[in-house]
Amino acid sequence: MLLEAVYHQPKSQYAYAYDNETLHIRVRTGRGDMDRVSIVWGDKYHFTEDTVTTTDMYIFAQDELFDYYQAEVKPPFRRFAYAFRFEKGSRTVFWNETGFTEGKLASGGVGMLWSPSGMFEFPFLNETDVARPPEWVKDAVFYQIFPERFENGDPSLTPEGAEAWTPDAVPQRDNFFGGDLQGVINRLDYLQDLGITCIYFTPFFEAYSNHKYDTIDYLKVDPQFGDNEKAKELVEKAHEKGIRVMLDAVFNHSGYYFPPFQDVLKHGKYSRFRDWFHIRSYPLANDPLNYDTFGFVPEMPKLNTEHPEVKAYLLETARYWIEDIGADGWRLDVANEVDHRFWREFRDVVKTANPDAYILGEIWHNSLAWLGGDQFDAVMNYPVTNSILDFFVKDEIDAENFMGRLDAIQVSYPKQANEAAFNLLDSHDTPRLLTIADGNKKRMKLAALFQLTFTGAPCIYYGDEVGMDGGADPGCRKPMIWDETAQDHDLFGFYKDMIALRKENRAFRDGSFQFLSAEKGADTVVYERSDEKNRFVILMNKGSRRQKVRLADEAGRTYEEVFGSRSAEVKNRRLD
Amino acid sequence: MLLEAVYHQPKSQYAYAYDNETLHIRVRTGRGDMDRVSIVWGDKYHFTEDTVTTTDMYIFAQDELFDYYQAEVKPPFRRFAYAFRFEKGSRTVFWNETGFTEGKLASGGVGMLWSPSGMFEFPFLNETDVARPPEWVKDAVFYQIFPERFENGDPSLTPEGAEAWTPDAVPQRDNFFGGDLQGVINRLDYLQDLGITCIYFTPFFEAYSNHKYDTIDYLKVDPQFGDNEKAKELVEKAHEKGIRVMLDAVFNHSGYYFPPFQDVLKHGKYSRFRDWFHIRSYPLANDPLNYDTFGFVPEMPKLNTEHPEVKAYLLETARYWIEDIGADGWRLDVANEVDHRFWREFRDVVKTANPDAYILGEIWHNSLAWLGGDQFDAVMNYPVTNSILDFFVKDEIDAENFMGRLDAIQVSYPKQANEAAFNLLDSHDTPRLLTIADGNKKRMKLAALFQLTFTGAPCIYYGDEVGMDGGADPGCRKPMIWDETAQDHDLFGFYKDMIALRKENRAFRDGSFQFLSAEKGADTVVYERSDEKNRFVILMNKGSRRQKVRLADEAGRTYEEVFGSRSAEVKNRRLD
Repeated sequence: MLLEAVYHQPKSQYAYAYDNETLHIRVRTGRGDMDRVSIVWGDKYHFTEDTVTTTDMYIFAQDELFDYYQAEVKPPFRRFAYAFRFEKGSRTVFWNETGFTEGKLASGGVGMLWSPSGMFEFPFLNETDVARPPEWVKDAVFYQIFPERFENGDPSLTPEGAEAWTPDAVPQRDNFFGGDLQGVINRLDYLQDLGITCIYFTPFFEAYSNHKYDTIDYLKVDPQFGDNEKAKELVEKAHEKGIRVMLDAVFNHSGYYFPPFQDVLKHGKYSRFRDWFHIRSYPLANDPLNYDTFGFVPEMPKLNTEHPEVKAYLLETARYWIEDIGADGWRLDVANEVDHRFWREFRDVVKTANPDAYILGEIWHNSLAWLGGDQFDAVMNYPVTNSILDFFVKDEIDAENFMGRLDAIQVSYPKQANEAAFNLLDSHDTPRLLTIADGNKKRMKLAALFQLTFTGAPCIYYGDEVGMDGGADPGCRKPMIWDETAQDHDLFGFYKDMIALRKENRAFRDGSFQFLSAEKGADTVVYERSDEKNRFVILMNKGSRRQKVRLADEAGRTYEEVFGSRSAEVKNRRLD
Repeated sequence: MLLEAVYHQPKSQYAYAYDNETLHIRVRTGRGDMDRVSIVWGDKYHFTEDTVTTTDMYIFAQDELFDYYQAEVKPPFRRFAYAFRFEKGSRTVFWNETGFTEGKLASGGVGMLWSPSGMFEFPFLNETDVARPPEWVKDAVFYQIFPERFENGDPSLTPEGAEAWTPDAVPQRDNFFGGDLQGVINRLDYLQDLGITCIYFTPFFEAYSNHKYDTIDYLKVDPQFGDNEKAKELVEKAHEKGIRVMLDAVFNHSGYYFPPFQDVLKHGKYSRFRDWFHIRSYPLANDPLNYDTFGFVPEMPKLNTEHPEVKAYLLETARYWIEDIGADGWRLDVANEVDHRFWREFRDVVKTANPDAYILGEIWHNSLAWLGGDQFDAVMNYPVTNSILDFFVKDEIDAENFMGRLDAIQVSYPKQANEAAFNLLDSHDTPRLLTIADGNKKRMKLAALFQLTFTGAPCIYYGDEVGMDGGADPGCRKPMIWDETAQDHDLFGFYKDMIALRKENRAFRDGSFQFLSAEKGADTVVYERSDEKNRFVILMNKGSRRQKVRLADEAGRTYEEVFGSRSAEVKNRRLD
């Protein structure tokens, strides 16, 4: 046994409450190392050889180096003391906090009278600590709208010097096209037809730039887009069509023209707003920077989210758009650079305003520290983005590696965070999917199909569905193509069908996910998604040649085509 | 390289802020596996081959299976992106979130324009998130008092039927001896003479039992002990002598005679307090229990700390004793079974009342989930208790195992939590140290010496210092021996000297700790504690035979005896 490979951490993604009754317990071992892994558990106040239960664990994920085992358990009194039992050949090893012991479960230490010492513990399942993302997120199909570029519905608001809204328009860092909220209202039918159930808006609050990530007033719709009444109308009309609305909270930093920052620029250390930012000396200077900023951008001063006035202002912002305007969630820009303490208070405010609001962090790296139930419901799932792109689109990894990376992500977080994850393939921050695919629509479709059939909520970047392309910012921010002669109708039909498939079948949203084939060097993957009602088997081949795949235990099963009317039985190990 | 042994988790005990400028980064490898480990790091917004820094890591802890490396770094803009570099022979492997790569650092994924993708990140060091236990705890020597058994200072309060306060008194589960707060006031000089700087009181709030863990009124001193004025007088007089006071918060459960519980017993589901507890059906029943309790004790109903009224009551309790009475901290009984959310609010209330108050959780198992800076300052350090007892007292493990277990604890938590840990060897919950040692005073002294020279604040259980013995509860709760003819003066002198040594030398409280010798099968350990001023080398032999130990790199050093006037130089590899 490779004991160095064995890993577990109590009260982490390896031991968490999934709901008010159920704990998920995981343990990692070397790949293929163990014959059998089980968990020996009981109530810490009544833990004897007679009262403990032994529960088998199953491999629920694998990567290159490791097997990850899981078991789901329901401790009757919500207290859970446990150890692991590993079996390999004739050898049995137990593991708890006292270490590994051969053959028998050890306890150690002075202990209390009535309790074993040295066990791992999940001491009590308190309901308030259970991470519970909103149920609707599992069922959602998101659509990201960059407001300046989706549709011009009110020409009276169009900025002076705005460029013509044509399919061949060229977005620049600083040009405008005239998109606005009325434009989105006008196109709600389009979104409903496509099957969208939630719009994610990049910021539409008053700001200087075209991307509006440099906020001037967090409580006001940018006049180029409309006003707060229009935002409320938009939310209400979207809700009528079964479409929710998620907004973008840029709380890490303000814009250059944010009045408190202007006040500091003007009055320096005498400004009453000086502590709203992180300033090291006066007057403010750029080279070297003597105040904290987003990246090294002097125009985006980092907000001091530890300051009571800043907190009050931003938390009122958080409340206002949810409670007064009716928005259904917040996507948190640069969420990882704001203090955890702020996000805990933010969560309280948002969930008080609407317990069903979705809190989504923009974090590009491992996000465990934000997903304990006290901060975010989920994060933007860039590790999944990258895995899908690397396998289907860029052809950089093989099926085995693809499976390993996706499985590793499943292990990185509690299950509920993965179920509510925000799975995107591109955005206003990246090149468009079709461009990453070098215009190869087949690869693009494979990537989108995987995204739309995987665990977690998919998000489509506006216009991908009609074949829009574009490189990194600003290229990916072209005005939406509404000219039907310039739209890709085949692609639109594909997206519409796949979205409908996901929405019509719970198995794709809430069912189990398992790879059936993902071999070393292979271009093909096969996976299943199933619930009590249906079992879907998806076979995907990203190569240019016809492939055969071998699946275990399929003999005698009958398959029906999802898009088509054929059905066939597996006979003589073949499905024809 | 044994890649399966390599472990790191961002934003955990493996990557945390130690102060407002400094990050501690740790990584685990197989024992003895690597020649060199370093960290490659930079600012995520300016991360290129030219701008990254490479910092060597050092082995700061070892156990049977692993080496644990650490480096301390100060990222200039408080943002930190990083990867690890492992070297062994001619092989170099880099590791970041994209996985292991041979020879060169990989980045992967779509990334943003200005940032590397796939690095580990500590995205921003926000001051408010830094775990910062009170500075005074490092310097403290605690003394645990069980109020009913320390001293009877006011006979008018002594309960009817109290037994005689004699050295051979026999404590029972339900008898009384008449200890009270005036008694403690009377003995403050004694504690000052011993060198104590903080008293930890088990509960003295109104309750039914002699141990007072079954609270009736959290805002009132038990009439057997005095009143709130007396408590305030005690705190003030202790403070005058440089002695702080920590109280015991039993917030997991109330007592049977807690009026809200009595109300539920009487009115069942019609009680307005029914939601103060976790009740599954009415009327309340014991067999089977239909409500949550501490352990399976029907008389200790678990409080619903999610309920707003319960929270308000307990949080007012937390505030009152700190702010109005002047107590210096709270020890939290059964802290692990109360919800994390409650403890976060509790911390806010307590630290607002007194930012220097100490918050100490009673947790017997791995406590990482409570030590992130948002809940407790530290926990009762039972893993250290057990290691010291197993090695010095019970003779169950060898020096190598002892070192491995202590080192593993250092790795389990951020450094500041270990520095503020509460290191006890016994308590009202365990047999007394002398009894665990089967009366062997030499072993007891070795254990106490180690405790008093180790990282973390030591706590002496009342009476250990005068040679009191006693088995598990109730045996360990004898009335304090004040009869000087029955006290062990040698032991008292030993404790007093060792406490003075610790207090006089910062190296023992705040210095580095390192084992110099701890070999397989050995009865001897050698360790050093040092700061800028002094270096102490402690050699301990728990065996009955004279031992030689070999230390590296000591040639030419001169040693002075701590207790004595001799000094000697290491010559020809000998110190005589």
